[in-house]
Amino acid sequence: MSSETYTATVIGGTGFTGGELLRLLAGHPNFEITQATSRSKANKTVGHSHPNLRELDLRFSSPDDLESVDVIFAATPHGVSMEQIDTFYEHADTVVDLSADFRLNTAEQYEEWYDGHSAPEYLDKSVYALPELTREELPGAELIASGGCNATSTILGLKPLFDADILSGGEDIVVDVKVGSSEGGAGGGAASSHPERSGIVRPYAPISHRHEAEIEQFLGISVSFTVHAVDMIRGSSATCHVFPGQPVSKGDLWKAYRGSYEDEPFMRLVAGGGGVYRYPEPKAVAGTNIGEVGFELDPSNKRIVAFSAIDNMMKGSAGQAIHGANVALGLDETAGLEFAGLHPVGAP
Amino acid sequence: MSSETYTATVIGGTGFTGGELLRLLAGHPNFEITQATSRSKANKTVGHSHPNLRELDLRFSSPDDLESVDVIFAATPHGVSMEQIDTFYEHADTVVDLSADFRLNTAEQYEEWYDGHSAPEYLDKSVYALPELTREELPGAELIASGGCNATSTILGLKPLFDADILSGGEDIVVDVKVGSSEGGAGGGAASSHPERSGIVRPYAPISHRHEAEIEQFLGISVSFTVHAVDMIRGSSATCHVFPGQPVSKGDLWKAYRGSYEDEPFMRLVAGGGGVYRYPEPKAVAGTNIGEVGFELDPSNKRIVAFSAIDNMMKGSAGQAIHGANVALGLDETAGLEFAGLHPVGAP
Amino acid sequence: MSSETYTATVIGGTGFTGGELLRLLAGHPNFEITQATSRSKANKTVGHSHPNLRELDLRFSSPDDLESVDVIFAATPHGVSMEQIDTFYEHADTVVDLSADFRLNTAEQYEEWYDGHSAPEYLDKSVYALPELTREELPGAELIASGGCNATSTILGLKPLFDADILSGGEDIVVDVKVGSSEGGAGGGAASSHPERSGIVRPYAPISHRHEAEIEQFLGISVSFTVHAVDMIRGSSATCHVFPGQPVSKGDLWKAYRGSYEDEPFMRLVAGGGGVYRYPEPKAVAGTNIGEVGFELDPSNKRIVAFSAIDNMMKGSAGQAIHGANVALGLDETAGLEFAGLHPVGAP
Amino acid sequence: MSSETYTATVIGGTGFTGGELLRLLAGHPNFEITQATSRSKANKTVGHSHPNLRELDLRFSSPDDLESVDVIFAATPHGVSMEQIDTFYEHADTVVDLSADFRLNTAEQYEEWYDGHSAPEYLDKSVYALPELTREELPGAELIASGGCNATSTILGLKPLFDADILSGGEDIVVDVKVGSSEGGAGGGAASSHPERSGIVRPYAPISHRHEAEIEQFLGISVSFTVHAVDMIRGSSATCHVFPGQPVSKGDLWKAYRGSYEDEPFMRLVAGGGGVYRYPEPKAVAGTNIGEVGFELDPSNKRIVAFSAIDNMMKGSAGQAIHGANVALGLDETAGLEFAGLHPVGAP
Repeated sequence: MSSETYTATVIGGTGFTGGELLRLLAGHPNFEITQATSRSKANKTVGHSHPNLRELDLRFSSPDDLESVDVIFAATPHGVSMEQIDTFYEHADTVVDLSADFRLNTAEQYEEWYDGHSAPEYLDKSVYALPELTREELPGAELIASGGCNATSTILGLKPLFDADILSGGEDIVVDVKVGSSEGGAGGGAASSHPERSGIVRPYAPISHRHEAEIEQFLGISVSFTVHAVDMIRGSSATCHVFPGQPVSKGDLWKAYRGSYEDEPFMRLVAGGGGVYRYPEPKAVAGTNIGEVGFELDPSNKRIVAFSAIDNMMKGSAGQAIHGANVALGLDETAGLEFAGLHPVGAP
Repeated sequence: MSSETYTATVIGGTGFTGGELLRLLAGHPNFEITQATSRSKANKTVGHSHPNLRELDLRFSSPDDLESVDVIFAATPHGVSMEQIDTFYEHADTVVDLSADFRLNTAEQYEEWYDGHSAPEYLDKSVYALPELTREELPGAELIASGGCNATSTILGLKPLFDADILSGGEDIVVDVKVGSSEGGAGGGAASSHPERSGIVRPYAPISHRHEAEIEQFLGISVSFTVHAVDMIRGSSATCHVFPGQPVSKGDLWKAYRGSYEDEPFMRLVAGGGGVYRYPEPKAVAGTNIGEVGFELDPSNKRIVAFSAIDNMMKGSAGQAIHGANVALGLDETAGLEFAGLHPVGAP
Repeated sequence: MSSETYTATVIGGTGFTGGELLRLLAGHPNFEITQATSRSKANKTVGHSHPNLRELDLRFSSPDDLESVDVIFAATPHGVSMEQIDTFYEHADTVVDLSADFRLNTAEQYEEWYDGHSAPEYLDKSVYALPELTREELPGAELIASGGCNATSTILGLKPLFDADILSGGEDIVVDVKVGSSEGGAGGGAASSHPERSGIVRPYAPISHRHEAEIEQFLGISVSFTVHAVDMIRGSSATCHVFPGQPVSKGDLWKAYRGSYEDEPFMRLVAGGGGVYRYPEPKAVAGTNIGEVGFELDPSNKRIVAFSAIDNMMKGSAGQAIHGANVALGLDETAGLEFAGLHPVGAP
Repeated sequence: MSSETYTATVIGGTGFTGGELLRLLAGHPNFEITQATSRSKANKTVGHSHPNLRELDLRFSSPDDLESVDVIFAATPHGVSMEQIDTFYEHADTVVDLSADFRLNTAEQYEEWYDGHSAPEYLDKSVYALPELTREELPGAELIASGGCNATSTILGLKPLFDADILSGGEDIVVDVKVGSSEGGAGGGAASSHPERSGIVRPYAPISHRHEAEIEQFLGISVSFTVHAVDMIRGSSATCHVFPGQPVSKGDLWKAYRGSYEDEPFMRLVAGGGGVYRYPEPKAVAGTNIGEVGFELDPSNKRIVAFSAIDNMMKGSAGQAIHGANVALGLDETAGLEFAGLHPVGAP
């Protein structure tokens, strides 16, 4: 296990995931923050944007004044990293990108779901970071594309069914996702204002959510995907309604989920035990890099209901990026990601 | 249209739906409240339980001291009304029951989903009150079984697809429902305490929710049904993922929903217009008897996503009960149910 | 009691209080809505902004196309009405203004707390609408300045102590107010975005809140005033810590509050009874025009703690404006304002 | 600095603060958990009560089966520890009590605010743990009484004004506190059920809150104290309205607060800077042991408004207990308490 220290820059430090990256890197034994960039808040303290980081003695730099570091973490909106990627490599050996820019394999896929891609030559080189899937490919990776939040929760919930050959790819799968307001980013806007956003069950992506592309790329299936915004801040909770073509027992499901995840440091199986939290619950993992998965079997409908819950900003973004970097650089996988979460807590 | 005035008693007046019944009856031009019963709070004012009704000059009576009235509204837990039904008829001509006791057609069905039925001879006589479905059967009904909240939201969302022959009954249908904390009732308990219940996406009925029985009885189909508790107080929001066996256009869907509901006084079609509220939203109908329905068409998956939102305590309970009584007694359908709802509001 | 019908226009119909005015006027037996104006959303339906008003068959007009009506209700930001006041009178006999523009008696006062006043000649003519204080002056008023939300909650809580000579004006009074997010208006912005605004106890006006001017003008005292934003949507809750210069008994307080409010149609005294809601509570009056007041006596500190709770958008704005207009025009005071509120409800 | 490891038992492990103690001890470099007791959940896993601790391989023991350890942390309701204190000392050298049992100096004080005290001989020996006040007395303490949540927030906000002689003890001080639902504990009950507890501004202790006793004991003053429950889960936010008898400048205040806290590892001064979080905010410290303090000066009323925000379960309970134990045992003060908090987060 490496105990080296790497210098790191966070691009886009004022956003929510930028803030989480800074929090995690500040507490990480193997990273040292060199810069955090922000065009609009250059020279302001990090604490100005992120009140939990008021102790951090760091001011935002202009993105035009990049210093050379070992690792750049980019937490910018989709489309920015692909424009800046050459600049990033002039200043770093490893780039970890949290946007969708380098998640898909081909420019065609990207264009289908987003826009034209301006740096398609990098798509081949990038390694998708959802370490439970791609751990083997990450060591030594120089371009890491951290998985999307809702894709991550969905893939984590469904993967054991494929691993165990309960699903083979042709089945009908409905994924009904519920997400928190942090997915809307730090910008504001009428739809995400507190009076309008509180207490809602808003179908914000009833169809055609872009994360379907990642799910399809990694699981090889097309899912029926709908995303609702509900009243929480952090969290992506995926309920997967699965209709396997063959008889399945509860024992099969336990075996499948345990088989896929029992050695995973960040995965937790929660399936119908006692207490208040009997299934995966976003607030039980808020602030952590943990993914909870669980299931029920509906014999009357020959249906598996698979549940998955993550903190969209952690396991679904900044935490996953650090996790990916840990694996890529040969560090302890859990370094900087040990926080266990709180109880009780309000999502969070 | 009748302008008669009916005396009314509310059985179980301290519960949440009992409170809503009292609120609605107090403002209803054709009803006059005679009694509200409560064993545990006999002699306390109604305002002691329901702060919005502090002006109401009424104290709870013991259920042992029933007076004779025209209509009894029973808002007791499942199983109570069937035990009391003969007593109710000794004191009233019409009984409107808000529990599940008289919703199903046969004792066998009831036993399958609940327990043994102690008054099966009344099952034949009862009329299910979901007036958009059963309006023709309600006039003159002496026993009205007000529809269940999650069954109501689901049935309202799916009904136009059957009316228009887009569905015929053999299709796969996944219904993913999100509900508010008022569905848990006024009792409290650890799972519904504020610290545990806030910010959740809790699969509280992942499979085998009892309202499936009502859906099956009225739509003739078995749906894959899962209910999540989310952070709102009032609301039942049903997202129905439907896979029709035939090609369907958006125009077909508009036609179907308009055809079923354009003359309905409480139904509203909301399907992808502008503004913040582009689909059915519980908080847009909180406090009202309105049902919102809408849809999207997912061509890539040959899927219809049908949305439906109601206030579980109104259109899903007390409001529906009054609506049913209005029709049964020949009153104006919308009498006492005119409240338009608030904006902005927190579900509510 | 007049049963005449008045035509009315709402200026600034897309805002939150504009929406409440439209809701109230649509259900008011003596008003008929002629126009609702909005520059940014001209020609869009009212339901586009206010989902609860989707049934209203009305589109926003440009404010440049005013028609002549009986009453103009202006719900624009501070400073707009004073610029438009002559135009308003060209199109209406009575103007009810919900902004601060005409609340203060003199241009000097206005300039001290806001900016220079461009129509000071109207300040003399305006009647402040907080009918519990100014009922006698309202009949026939042609310019009505509806009271500010936090001033209203504070004045209602303290007034009985002055009426009963428990306070005479020289006492120390600390008023600690908690308000909901609707006070920030419909605009959005980072501070009012759901992720930042949820769960806060934010001192948003620690000192120098402008409503102090109204309180001083009507009660003749200077109060120590601090406003916190908390996690609710509607509501202004004022806790007044009062140190009377003389011994006071709980009986004195009951007498004072009953004396001031027992004949008031919208005032409710809630002081330490049983049940969950033992003191004034914003969510108990959400959506209504009711003001709740109550108190405790702290003998050890010779302190009265007076509580007051209103819905800032109703009794603190649109409801108060309608109430004022009802009195001014000789209508039933409670016309259009009968809604009793909901239980349970989430503020709301 | 000691690097010794201490064995520890948590009494009352199913409660909210018991869970926080377990979380903190599990991550603490100098403690090893031996037992967690619970009578009602003996033999159940810790994760059954605290979903964030599902990884902890520990089951609750009966309190009758205590093993000998170095330190007992007692997180039981008031009145339990005084009954058990001799038993505790049979099984541990050091007792850290989170209840009010040993906070006050004399049995008379205790009886005034609580009930009769059954172990008054221990009152002399106990050291109050609010390390910013009592750091000097803690080393070697064998009975530590961790400070109360609302007393802690209040004392932290006011202390600098006494340290700097801005206050001397005879001044009028109004303290208006806002607290989260976790203060009500894990038990449930109608008043703390989600439908009733959401969105409230409930004066739950309008007068005579017991923490006044601690404030009076440590600051030597009687404050006018009122506590409101608001919609958050964690947090105690104290707004102190202070009327000093002498002229004070903002510079004096900066000097006072910096003077008291600049070397304190857990104190943060937040007073009117830029950004969204310009004053102390509970959600900015949720999950942490940090106390935020700040102030404004209201020249027109000769008033200081001092703000203080803590997480009631951390700095106001479990965190403070660990902090006190760290000091008492000669450990690094911040050991096990390094978590920086999250942003954005929902209190939390």
